[in-house]
Amino acid sequence: MIKPWSDKLRKVDPYVPGEQSKKQNIIKLNANENPYPPSPKVVEAIHNFDTDKLCLYPNSSAYQLTEALAQHYGLDMNQVFVGNGSDEVIALAYMAYFNSPDKPILFPDITYSFYPVWCNFFKTPYLTKAVDENFRINAKDYYEKNGGVIIPNPNAPTGMSEGREFIEEILQHNQDVVVIIDEAYVDFGSYSAVELLKKYENLVIVHTFSKSRSLAGMRIGVALGNPELISLLNAVKNCYNSYTLDSVAIAAGTASVNDDTYFLSTLNKVIETRERTAKELSDLGFKVFPSHSNFLFVTHPTISAKELFEAAKAENIFIRFFDLPRINNHLRISIGTDAQMDALIGFIKKYQGR
Amino acid sequence: MIKPWSDKLRKVDPYVPGEQSKKQNIIKLNANENPYPPSPKVVEAIHNFDTDKLCLYPNSSAYQLTEALAQHYGLDMNQVFVGNGSDEVIALAYMAYFNSPDKPILFPDITYSFYPVWCNFFKTPYLTKAVDENFRINAKDYYEKNGGVIIPNPNAPTGMSEGREFIEEILQHNQDVVVIIDEAYVDFGSYSAVELLKKYENLVIVHTFSKSRSLAGMRIGVALGNPELISLLNAVKNCYNSYTLDSVAIAAGTASVNDDTYFLSTLNKVIETRERTAKELSDLGFKVFPSHSNFLFVTHPTISAKELFEAAKAENIFIRFFDLPRINNHLRISIGTDAQMDALIGFIKKYQGR
Repeated sequence: MIKPWSDKLRKVDPYVPGEQSKKQNIIKLNANENPYPPSPKVVEAIHNFDTDKLCLYPNSSAYQLTEALAQHYGLDMNQVFVGNGSDEVIALAYMAYFNSPDKPILFPDITYSFYPVWCNFFKTPYLTKAVDENFRINAKDYYEKNGGVIIPNPNAPTGMSEGREFIEEILQHNQDVVVIIDEAYVDFGSYSAVELLKKYENLVIVHTFSKSRSLAGMRIGVALGNPELISLLNAVKNCYNSYTLDSVAIAAGTASVNDDTYFLSTLNKVIETRERTAKELSDLGFKVFPSHSNFLFVTHPTISAKELFEAAKAENIFIRFFDLPRINNHLRISIGTDAQMDALIGFIKKYQGR
Repeated sequence: MIKPWSDKLRKVDPYVPGEQSKKQNIIKLNANENPYPPSPKVVEAIHNFDTDKLCLYPNSSAYQLTEALAQHYGLDMNQVFVGNGSDEVIALAYMAYFNSPDKPILFPDITYSFYPVWCNFFKTPYLTKAVDENFRINAKDYYEKNGGVIIPNPNAPTGMSEGREFIEEILQHNQDVVVIIDEAYVDFGSYSAVELLKKYENLVIVHTFSKSRSLAGMRIGVALGNPELISLLNAVKNCYNSYTLDSVAIAAGTASVNDDTYFLSTLNKVIETRERTAKELSDLGFKVFPSHSNFLFVTHPTISAKELFEAAKAENIFIRFFDLPRINNHLRISIGTDAQMDALIGFIKKYQGR
């Protein structure tokens, strides 16, 4: 039956995140989560949180966290914005910066699959640029007139990153639009464009606490940019929801930023595990793309990605398969603990009949 | 200097929330916060939270909290949506339900000042309907063709509420659009339309944890409606940000819903304090509008609201003054503890030279 109000309802095509199974004892390598717990300082901040304060609204600009981040990056506070996960930060950034009525925004064809979802949702025209046969982004593809650019570095799901020269080339050829560099995975060893903020006023960098800081469950994202662009991001947020970060998240995030020692030690563990897993998968015949992230993008000349994905799932090992053009025989494998990766490798060996 | 990317930037007119002072020892009666801490069960949920889980993404539909709320309201889980504060819930609801290209959405002229901000932000045409000389909403004003209706009950900043007959009258005359009843303050004694959900499929009710549950700092909002409308709200959320509630907020919110005894005792304290404060202000010559919320809306025949607001602020007592047509000689005073209200009354007596 058609409901009389149906014509006022929005038609949507939502993003589908990596499956969150309710099963216990699964090996979860499908959402690029960090296998290690957050810093003990974060634990302390939550477990000692002064809950009497919860009856009050949070500070709308998350002052405490913004200040800690400014210090961490060597920026002024008015160059830092925080939001409810980097997905919210990017959604707000689309609304703030991508408002060209007739020119499309540009991003790679193989990339974070939320980018086109936001475009459709906000009615932002867009054009994807094909990555090359090695899945690398070609800077020259971004020379044409556009309404804005968003590039992830490292890219997902390929895990590959580009250096300063590439980012500067993009920025130099796009001085009349805002360029967003989505550095969700940057801490795992890729080049960060933060140093370019003083040179390019149209650069906005997005970071997240969900990967390198082991805080996917806490929902904290960051934008860095010039004060004018950051101020607009705050204004846009205040047109949508004045308080997006709760007081506990602000305290937890601040504690994380203030514990560099733990942060670096966790990063190093993930990177070491990534490197040896890459070698092991390579030894098993996989093509492993060079990763600067906390995941590996792989394909195998004789094993079907889809079949391996399903067989692993049946054994409670969750990895990510994308049924998308160009990459439907590839798999994205998040880096877990050494024990988790051993279990995966063991499973694949068994699957190969070795 | 005009920046070359300026023409791609969004022009906005953001909402301005009640001032959050960084001063200590202020009496904060300007943001309708609850003066009491959240339930001891909430404190326990936060202080015992299993922080090892924070490296994982939250459950995207906040399963645990949705289930507790469904039980609390006697609804099915698929009739319940949770978001990052009721402001986010309403923002998402605008995007989901208010998409008539040519008919305006309707709401009162004196009401929550975020309603027109969202309209401007989402480019939703709107028409305000003047409340009467006693600041009451006239249901007949909402009979005309429209793209949707949003009515707060109780209304803010007046605090006055309407009963079942009024709500049904609105619903019966608006069966071809979605009608949102914003019940942010409903727990403080007004009629709740939850029982009407089984009768009207186009009804969506919005609640918040920020007022009656003392959790403004935790950012939890709720929408209740028929499964089709709730499912759309989830789809719209998944076009914007898949995970808006963090894992700690989900645990804290669930604990709050499961502690009815504490909830009711806090409510009763606020209501008692409201009633005796209303009487005292009335005795001091104020016109006090009948409140079913956790605040009082008042005006005085000889005292300037603006001057009283400023004098109180100088004494570290924060109340709310709106420099808006029709209400610029009125004040909105949140209900604090008895001691806080005594301080306010004492200040006003001194101000009056009594």
